[in-house]
Amino acid sequence: MSTHSLTYTVTFGDCDPAGIVFYPNIHGWFDRCFHDWLAGFGGHAQVCARLGAIGAGLMQAEARFRRPMRPNDRIEVTMTIRDWGRKTLTLAYEVTRDGEVTATGTEVRGLFKPVEGGITAGEMAELRALLGL
Amino acid sequence: MSTHSLTYTVTFGDCDPAGIVFYPNIHGWFDRCFHDWLAGFGGHAQVCARLGAIGAGLMQAEARFRRPMRPNDRIEVTMTIRDWGRKTLTLAYEVTRDGEVTATGTEVRGLFKPVEGGITAGEMAELRALLGL
Amino acid sequence: MSTHSLTYTVTFGDCDPAGIVFYPNIHGWFDRCFHDWLAGFGGHAQVCARLGAIGAGLMQAEARFRRPMRPNDRIEVTMTIRDWGRKTLTLAYEVTRDGEVTATGTEVRGLFKPVEGGITAGEMAELRALLGL
Amino acid sequence: MSTHSLTYTVTFGDCDPAGIVFYPNIHGWFDRCFHDWLAGFGGHAQVCARLGAIGAGLMQAEARFRRPMRPNDRIEVTMTIRDWGRKTLTLAYEVTRDGEVTATGTEVRGLFKPVEGGITAGEMAELRALLGL
Repeated sequence: MSTHSLTYTVTFGDCDPAGIVFYPNIHGWFDRCFHDWLAGFGGHAQVCARLGAIGAGLMQAEARFRRPMRPNDRIEVTMTIRDWGRKTLTLAYEVTRDGEVTATGTEVRGLFKPVEGGITAGEMAELRALLGL
Repeated sequence: MSTHSLTYTVTFGDCDPAGIVFYPNIHGWFDRCFHDWLAGFGGHAQVCARLGAIGAGLMQAEARFRRPMRPNDRIEVTMTIRDWGRKTLTLAYEVTRDGEVTATGTEVRGLFKPVEGGITAGEMAELRALLGL
Repeated sequence: MSTHSLTYTVTFGDCDPAGIVFYPNIHGWFDRCFHDWLAGFGGHAQVCARLGAIGAGLMQAEARFRRPMRPNDRIEVTMTIRDWGRKTLTLAYEVTRDGEVTATGTEVRGLFKPVEGGITAGEMAELRALLGL
Repeated sequence: MSTHSLTYTVTFGDCDPAGIVFYPNIHGWFDRCFHDWLAGFGGHAQVCARLGAIGAGLMQAEARFRRPMRPNDRIEVTMTIRDWGRKTLTLAYEVTRDGEVTATGTEVRGLFKPVEGGITAGEMAELRALLGL
């Protein structure tokens, strides 16, 4: 499964004094969609435990905000696997409301593994094999 | 309608380094439920515009956290109107997961109206009448 | 040390479409103050590791919102230890802006310890002894 | 003034179950820095009111996460004006901890103005003139 979607209702508290969604929350919806997808494979905690990783975390993120979203908007967030790199997984996101695109973005994730004094990026092939993709 | 419910999936980003939900987010779900309820009456912005209010905002809140919630938990949040006071509206909340109570709480809200140099609490009867309750 | 304070600048993203602070963030500032206090004892992670706990987490919380706070308000959050119970620690909070109280609240925390199939509340005397209070 | 900095202490609630900062919060710190900079010109609300805008909002954002940040890390966020476009303002951000870069990013902002049925991007020259830059 290389595409995953969820629906979400924008709430008052997601929005700022301009009355529109505070943009970091849109990144939060990308992350929500990724974790919802991983839930189908046992969830982030279980997947990471099996790989000796602390997280499938962010190395890079990018978003374009095309139309403002407001309280009570019903949106759909769709994630597509764009690329499995040696040490990165690139995911593309699209947020729509009534079929109209409101935001798009990408996340580049690494498999964070603990090493002496810090964290290193592990081989993505391990995650890919575990997920059977 | 004096009871309102919604379902919500706890996400990774709702949780803290202890692996359980960061408690202010539970208050956020109370607020989400309140606004979802108001959406049935046109939504907070429209209701406030009609009443000349800036918000149906918080005067007091309280919560009890009974069981930890974790990523991917599917929860239900239920709001019940407990009391219409002269200048306050008291709402009771219950969060459940698989029928088991994980958190409860109350919110006391006022109808915030702008006055010279600040905000004052308006008469709740106005909101009640507008909602037809 | 049984009182601890920090200063914080309210930011745009802390506020909602009514232009005032979204109330769960005020609970977040209580939590921030608690953790900033614990930082003086090595921080939450280290303290919990020494006690075999997953967190000094919330059992109950309560707040009163006295005056709205807005973007760029410079606030002070003060925490006072109110009570060491057998399995609870009660903390009182006060938020001020220019010496004027904007919010108050309390948190009741437990020492969450992992047990078969869940979490139990440990003896607070352990935390108290570790902190030398 | 085309560079602005602020210091911030990472708190427990900014972090996720992996024990490191939840990445949307880093975008939130970029936004915080922007608004802190605008505060020196009267603040976002006043600036927007003078320009008939609802916000100096996001059209695009991007970030690179170079080193994980954890609770109690003391960080510095620095914003630099990179480019005044006709309808965009591009801002570059750098987050450091003890002089070491932990994250970088850019925001592309527009001057959102209300029009029949939506929002349009206004001329940036107006904002630039108001700020005297």
